[in-house]
Amino acid sequence: MATAGGNLNIILRLEIDKEKATFGRIATLINGLNGDIIAIDVISEGKSHTIRDFTVTVFDQEHSDLVVREVRSITGVKLHHVSDRTFLVHLGGKIETRLKTPIKNRDDLSRVYTPGVARVCTAIHNDESLANSLTIKRNTVAVISDGSAVLGLGNIGPKAAMPVMEGKAMLFKQLANIDAFPICLNTQDPEEIINVVKALEPTFGGINLEDIASPHCFEIERRLSEELDIPVFHDDQHGTAVVILAGLFNALKVVEKTLEDCKVVICGIGAAGIACTKMLLRAGAKNVIGVDKKGALVKTKTYENQQWNWYAENTNPYEEEGLLSEVIKGADIFIGVSGPGVLKAEDVKNMGRDPIVFAMANPTPEILPEVAKPYVSVMATGRSDYPNQINNVLCFPGMFRGALDCRASEITEDMKLAAAKAIASTVKESELNADYIIPSVFNEKVVDKVRRAVIDAAHESGVARKEYSLSMKNPADEVFM
Amino acid sequence: MATAGGNLNIILRLEIDKEKATFGRIATLINGLNGDIIAIDVISEGKSHTIRDFTVTVFDQEHSDLVVREVRSITGVKLHHVSDRTFLVHLGGKIETRLKTPIKNRDDLSRVYTPGVARVCTAIHNDESLANSLTIKRNTVAVISDGSAVLGLGNIGPKAAMPVMEGKAMLFKQLANIDAFPICLNTQDPEEIINVVKALEPTFGGINLEDIASPHCFEIERRLSEELDIPVFHDDQHGTAVVILAGLFNALKVVEKTLEDCKVVICGIGAAGIACTKMLLRAGAKNVIGVDKKGALVKTKTYENQQWNWYAENTNPYEEEGLLSEVIKGADIFIGVSGPGVLKAEDVKNMGRDPIVFAMANPTPEILPEVAKPYVSVMATGRSDYPNQINNVLCFPGMFRGALDCRASEITEDMKLAAAKAIASTVKESELNADYIIPSVFNEKVVDKVRRAVIDAAHESGVARKEYSLSMKNPADEVFM
Repeated sequence: MATAGGNLNIILRLEIDKEKATFGRIATLINGLNGDIIAIDVISEGKSHTIRDFTVTVFDQEHSDLVVREVRSITGVKLHHVSDRTFLVHLGGKIETRLKTPIKNRDDLSRVYTPGVARVCTAIHNDESLANSLTIKRNTVAVISDGSAVLGLGNIGPKAAMPVMEGKAMLFKQLANIDAFPICLNTQDPEEIINVVKALEPTFGGINLEDIASPHCFEIERRLSEELDIPVFHDDQHGTAVVILAGLFNALKVVEKTLEDCKVVICGIGAAGIACTKMLLRAGAKNVIGVDKKGALVKTKTYENQQWNWYAENTNPYEEEGLLSEVIKGADIFIGVSGPGVLKAEDVKNMGRDPIVFAMANPTPEILPEVAKPYVSVMATGRSDYPNQINNVLCFPGMFRGALDCRASEITEDMKLAAAKAIASTVKESELNADYIIPSVFNEKVVDKVRRAVIDAAHESGVARKEYSLSMKNPADEVFM
Repeated sequence: MATAGGNLNIILRLEIDKEKATFGRIATLINGLNGDIIAIDVISEGKSHTIRDFTVTVFDQEHSDLVVREVRSITGVKLHHVSDRTFLVHLGGKIETRLKTPIKNRDDLSRVYTPGVARVCTAIHNDESLANSLTIKRNTVAVISDGSAVLGLGNIGPKAAMPVMEGKAMLFKQLANIDAFPICLNTQDPEEIINVVKALEPTFGGINLEDIASPHCFEIERRLSEELDIPVFHDDQHGTAVVILAGLFNALKVVEKTLEDCKVVICGIGAAGIACTKMLLRAGAKNVIGVDKKGALVKTKTYENQQWNWYAENTNPYEEEGLLSEVIKGADIFIGVSGPGVLKAEDVKNMGRDPIVFAMANPTPEILPEVAKPYVSVMATGRSDYPNQINNVLCFPGMFRGALDCRASEITEDMKLAAAKAIASTVKESELNADYIIPSVFNEKVVDKVRRAVIDAAHESGVARKEYSLSMKNPADEVFM
């Protein structure tokens, strides 16, 4: 695992032939490689052989590989396996199901299962809306991925995507008490994904789409939003956009500018870039310019990518052309959702007064904070080791908590904007400064603030289907027979 | 809820206008209707109005309806809603997800989510078999239904089926520590169901099909078993068959007969009847006769139902014809998986010496035990209020526990037969008698016995993909990097 100091603890399980190898030999070798042995545990002790777990602190993965390679080469030592705390915490998966009430006797059994359950089934059959109070649907969200664009790893497939979706389900539960279930699909065909998710609707109260590659993600989200009766949210697009906007609201206060007056350059016109632009326009931005590898998108050109044609039509009012280094000149805000190092110190120098730079590429941002620092007023990244981390975790738990609580049929633009403002409002005026424009993911107020804002906006948007008293205590208030 | 005495507790939430109605009036009315008020709880107290929960014991649903109707008609009383313990236990659903380890700080977060999770994803991407140790797949079963044949309620649809699947998931967890997740599908098209379940494979280690109507259930199970790499089990067919066979093994000991020498009549040639017949043949039965509404199936006839043609071809060696009342003559064993009251006392009288009758129709069996009693030696039903309850709960937890533990690729006939023998073996020779041929669903030995038998049979069948040491303690033994 990556500890605070950047070290990694690995556990080597070694079978040692007592005649051929000794502890001393192994320890000397590991120490000689600058590995720090912090524990040795006996797993089994035989006459001729012994099996032991060596816990060793190393610097990084490369250092680990070196230690493993050298240990493996010792005569009389057989390396069973190497594990570390990150792998150990994944053993058998990271979430489980649990009974809300135990089945203690036949009476309990007859209520939760046959024959008693039949009356509940019949009640739902007679009034389907009761599924929202009498089944897990009320509090359950599917975290759906096809594994086509996982983290920065690309198309690693559905099985390899599961640990991310399980981690997301953990966050849903811990932060917003939502029962999220990770589902990775054995297909990357958009039509099939749409059909599968539609078939799952009776079970779930909401759909969180995750790590689905562009451009399929647009079509999948659009169709599901239209065809399903429950909220659908592609977190990579909208979660990112909401949190960027939240940070931006506060960054603008720091530099005392208004969004309306700013020239905003967005670099990387994929799923997140487009979602971010839509939110910026909705929030009042007048001059947004999208830039991709071939330069700024302008309405005088036609693009193969349909999304880009829409984009060009609706942005860049002064029809600025050219590469990033051109259009960045005089800009107030740079938002990068592209790749490492695309923004140069020279570019930031050419921006307007008090530039704001959000460099979201992960793990290596469009420009490193230490490089941008001399020229920039407010800087944010996606990383936790710099100030101002823009992290989706600030949005999705409260967003879904609110949507489920008011039984929203969809997630509207106004709900997203409300969520962004709620996140921004968590930073008090008195605390606000260039290094603190966005709350920590562990800030306890965020989820509830977002939830309340989302519920209000859902009612205003007309998509809420339940009056939800914020002070409501007795869950029995919700059963109507 | 149905208490031991057959009573039902209901909770009436009443808003009472203090000027127009009094407690006395309400209590007198309820008592006059033979309702027993056992508790009154104040929900809110206002100047002119008060809201109270009246908990009332009534005889049954009809009695409840009467009380509700009369209370509703009192002037000055507004009935908010009626609930009972069965409904209350279903509020918000019966299962939840849970983190196996909490996320306490940024270090934890960086292991279970980005950036640490990326190494786990990469490891699975490089070796997909690691998904079996590093994700929930290892211990997670999908309980899948389309809601087309739920309990005895028929085609009530997927939303109304959810409470049954949730109850099943509870039993999986409580009895076998399996994380089962209920999924009810918004389609009843077999091809669509097959496609959806296939798409879900990366997430799950096993598929339990449930309450899917015949004949679709056959095709769905056959195709999924062939096309998926994980065990698929249609509990209504095979779970029922396994437990019937378990009971039969012990019933035969009681009457001192062997299956080979018995004439077996199976009434009701649907999903369960066919599965049961296949298991009987596999277990050595020579003379099995299937009977449906139009009489015994014989190979001299051709049927529209393809399953019936297979059935006629492989059973009824002496080509007996006629209705149940004919072919039952001289039979040793009757197994009913049909409807209420189809077997008459006269029919049992006409059976051979020491007849065995399994009347599984639920809630009303093919013949009531009190009617059959004078003529029958061993009698079993699906009900908990008579001796010898044949209940699927005895099979599926141990079956899947075993299949998951040895990572079986499928569930073979031999695994089912082994499970039946294991269930039967739970009743000791010394305990065995006509009223105790099958263990209780709360018998703590059943799951582990079934599990061990299933693992052994899976290895013998060549479908086990993991050596599983029954004494293995250290889960870290399973991570190979």
